[in-house]
Amino acid sequence: MSYFDAASAAPLHPVARQGLLAALDDGWADPSRLYREGRRARMLLDAARETAAEAVGCRFDELVFTSSGTRAVHDGIAGATAGRRRVGRHLIVSSVEHSSVLHSAERYAAAGGAVTEVAVDRSGAVDAEGYARALRPDTALACLQSANHEVGTEQPVAAVAEACRAAGVPLLVDAAQSLGWAPVAGAWSLLAASAHKWGGPAGVGLLVVRKGVRFAPQGPADERESGRAAGFENLPAIVAAAASLRAVRAEAAREAARLRELTARIRARVPALVPDVEVVGDPERRLPGIVTFSCLYVDGETLLHELDRAGFSVSSGSSCTSSTLTPSHVLRAMGVLSEGNVRISLPPGTPAEEVERFLDVLPGVVTGVRERVGAPVGAGHPAAPSAGPAAAGADDGTSPDSPTDLSPSSSTGTSPDSPGDLPGGSVSGAPAEGPAGGALVVDALGRRCPIPVIELAKVIGDVPVGGTVLVLADDEAARLDIPAWCEMRGQAYLGEEPADQGSAYLVRRVS
Amino acid sequence: MSYFDAASAAPLHPVARQGLLAALDDGWADPSRLYREGRRARMLLDAARETAAEAVGCRFDELVFTSSGTRAVHDGIAGATAGRRRVGRHLIVSSVEHSSVLHSAERYAAAGGAVTEVAVDRSGAVDAEGYARALRPDTALACLQSANHEVGTEQPVAAVAEACRAAGVPLLVDAAQSLGWAPVAGAWSLLAASAHKWGGPAGVGLLVVRKGVRFAPQGPADERESGRAAGFENLPAIVAAAASLRAVRAEAAREAARLRELTARIRARVPALVPDVEVVGDPERRLPGIVTFSCLYVDGETLLHELDRAGFSVSSGSSCTSSTLTPSHVLRAMGVLSEGNVRISLPPGTPAEEVERFLDVLPGVVTGVRERVGAPVGAGHPAAPSAGPAAAGADDGTSPDSPTDLSPSSSTGTSPDSPGDLPGGSVSGAPAEGPAGGALVVDALGRRCPIPVIELAKVIGDVPVGGTVLVLADDEAARLDIPAWCEMRGQAYLGEEPADQGSAYLVRRVS
Repeated sequence: MSYFDAASAAPLHPVARQGLLAALDDGWADPSRLYREGRRARMLLDAARETAAEAVGCRFDELVFTSSGTRAVHDGIAGATAGRRRVGRHLIVSSVEHSSVLHSAERYAAAGGAVTEVAVDRSGAVDAEGYARALRPDTALACLQSANHEVGTEQPVAAVAEACRAAGVPLLVDAAQSLGWAPVAGAWSLLAASAHKWGGPAGVGLLVVRKGVRFAPQGPADERESGRAAGFENLPAIVAAAASLRAVRAEAAREAARLRELTARIRARVPALVPDVEVVGDPERRLPGIVTFSCLYVDGETLLHELDRAGFSVSSGSSCTSSTLTPSHVLRAMGVLSEGNVRISLPPGTPAEEVERFLDVLPGVVTGVRERVGAPVGAGHPAAPSAGPAAAGADDGTSPDSPTDLSPSSSTGTSPDSPGDLPGGSVSGAPAEGPAGGALVVDALGRRCPIPVIELAKVIGDVPVGGTVLVLADDEAARLDIPAWCEMRGQAYLGEEPADQGSAYLVRRVS
Repeated sequence: MSYFDAASAAPLHPVARQGLLAALDDGWADPSRLYREGRRARMLLDAARETAAEAVGCRFDELVFTSSGTRAVHDGIAGATAGRRRVGRHLIVSSVEHSSVLHSAERYAAAGGAVTEVAVDRSGAVDAEGYARALRPDTALACLQSANHEVGTEQPVAAVAEACRAAGVPLLVDAAQSLGWAPVAGAWSLLAASAHKWGGPAGVGLLVVRKGVRFAPQGPADERESGRAAGFENLPAIVAAAASLRAVRAEAAREAARLRELTARIRARVPALVPDVEVVGDPERRLPGIVTFSCLYVDGETLLHELDRAGFSVSSGSSCTSSTLTPSHVLRAMGVLSEGNVRISLPPGTPAEEVERFLDVLPGVVTGVRERVGAPVGAGHPAAPSAGPAAAGADDGTSPDSPTDLSPSSSTGTSPDSPGDLPGGSVSGAPAEGPAGGALVVDALGRRCPIPVIELAKVIGDVPVGGTVLVLADDEAARLDIPAWCEMRGQAYLGEEPADQGSAYLVRRVS
């Protein structure tokens, strides 16, 4: 098995295991007690805090241990915004933050706060100047991740921190993905991180609040961890977290260079080996171990399943692999393809041979999955115009006046090769003369990703250059993937309008 | 070393250690992932939940794992009160709950809720009927511990749960101290517990919410643990927690009987071996392993330190051993002596010989501490009336009209034997004819527990039977310990009034 999902959880570092075992014997007692076992626990806790603070680059008394990175984010945002309540009730986040940040922002908005979501470019990065423009006199807190957890893109934290400093606004950095590699540069004010992302154990997060930052812990009072993290200290795990952070840092420079080469090779080879693939994320300003790509005409869940069968554990931002039925908010914010999405995040120590084996296996797996979902024949090249009953002459290219009036009147079922394992009804992708100025109508209502895009790809050749195809779809992924398909295939995406069910997406054939 | 503080944190059970080690290898991945490592983690998590639910006596889907017992209490109270916000905003707690419950109640009150604190008797137990009378039509939630963490007294949970059920009010039971011994009987609605109290690892709590109980999780949304416990699951620790709960339960009946005998022996022997000791807590309805007593004229911190030197790790509810300078709220609510307080909580497996050694060592340790703080000569018996210049004839026995006018005018310094290691100024305990109807005035302002009581004890013999002593003190413990001393020594406590500094406590000599 090759485990390529370190961005979710890294396997336990050997030093973490050793630290945990040692602290199980010496660190189970209450560090606030005066007796021998308590004093020993206190010494271990203090030493772990020193080690972690040194790795972060902060003072000993600025850092507390929380029960997870998520808790560090939740409690950091709650405490910092409450501490500056008198300044105002405005919060800034980027649109590609971890869900713990975005859920905190939702909660803040629900309680009456204002939230600005700063957009990212197609690489997933915010623009520092654009971020700075979001700062307002009533901004209580700004949040920015150090690097993105789904595509690996690094954010311009130092520049944003400088803009925040100039405006007198504290910046909270979610450093979950990067802290194992290096300290976060710049004049940030708060920092959150998670030990199991760097090879430490689960159950430990870090919350750093710089001296001078107003901070009002929320929730019931609790004396532990300076009142900033309620509950009995999880000391053995804290000891293991700190020890492993130091250990991974000692190996970071060498290992980062090695993993960066491996991911660069994946970035270069996958598009050459697999047709119709989009590699996403910044090619240069990125984390060493993460590379993410999406495959047209591929059902993400099936792809993950087949890769798992082939011995590769990866994750995906495709909608069909999540419980919410919506594509990853990161891919959505970037405006890139979400179907057939694969995130590779290599744990430190991954052998190059495993990556080579992945590159050997991937093309066949993708081909197999495409065949199962009935991807267009000859995927990888635009389908040739057929001689079928296309909506010839329909070339106005404007959005239909009232797409909600469209009905999939003359749809004919053209089942894909093996649709049995996909949800939804039969495929209705036959061309139709609708009231929408002669666009060819594809009814993909009730069909899930990647079927709407597949049906579009199948019929685009049936309209002449300049002709239009209207796709009716109610799958959330279509909103992202139809425009992304157009961009990848050089067709013109004309826009979306609400329909009786779902939405109507209009595409003009350009080539 | 004899570790007698299991009620703070129990040493790791061998089964917990084994479970943790096994799950470190198999349970570090994200249980929400679809690949092999994730599925294995999910299986471990499901199995742990089954095990824990069986031990609690609840359904699999009623139980979530939190990051600590404190978090389980905080989140349980927040979620249950929010879920019943429309019913009303009234919360009931007992006065001897764990600080996590009382801090939640403070937070609830600060947010506009009403809180009723149900009193306990001198044994530390609530009266079920008295508790039931606190229920109101607008009561959102009632809370009651299964057994007290400082004195071991069991609460009448089943009877209170029945009253709550009849009133349609959910009852949250803090079962932290008892869950290792047995399930909580009765029709409770929510339950919280903490693994490191039963020999599991730190970092794991349980929150059980019965089906049908309205519950609205607070804080930012998070999909893990049914939305009731944010953050990546601490799976190795969860596995260890569940495995050790099953293991301690298998040994519970035998071990409970054995520890109950040991604590019964301490309850019986300590008052026989050490003069002026009050054993507190219910002698029958109590946890097997906890016994608590207080020693007159003893500085708690020094006592703990000396016991630690002698090889015994115990805790204390005395004010001088806490960071808050106030005595334990439990002892205060019970109205018992707080000075020289010692809580013994035996971990399962404690050898009888360790208890015997403790009984051998304790009398000498207490005597030594008493000597150091200048306890009255012949402590253990009422001091004989001296022939000194006592306030003869002062026998009205009423409270002074205006004790705030009292000044320690004629105090003379009578230093205790070795006061050097105690805070505060010189002792001013000489008799004085004040304006308070001839009471003898003891000025203990600025002196900390146990000095005010020691000074009182030293001079009580200087007034005739029927005469009064007025103690001026600003130490919080005096409010509890002077009445407790009177009860223990058969003197009459007449009451307290505010003074220029601190308070004035009036005592009449009865024997």
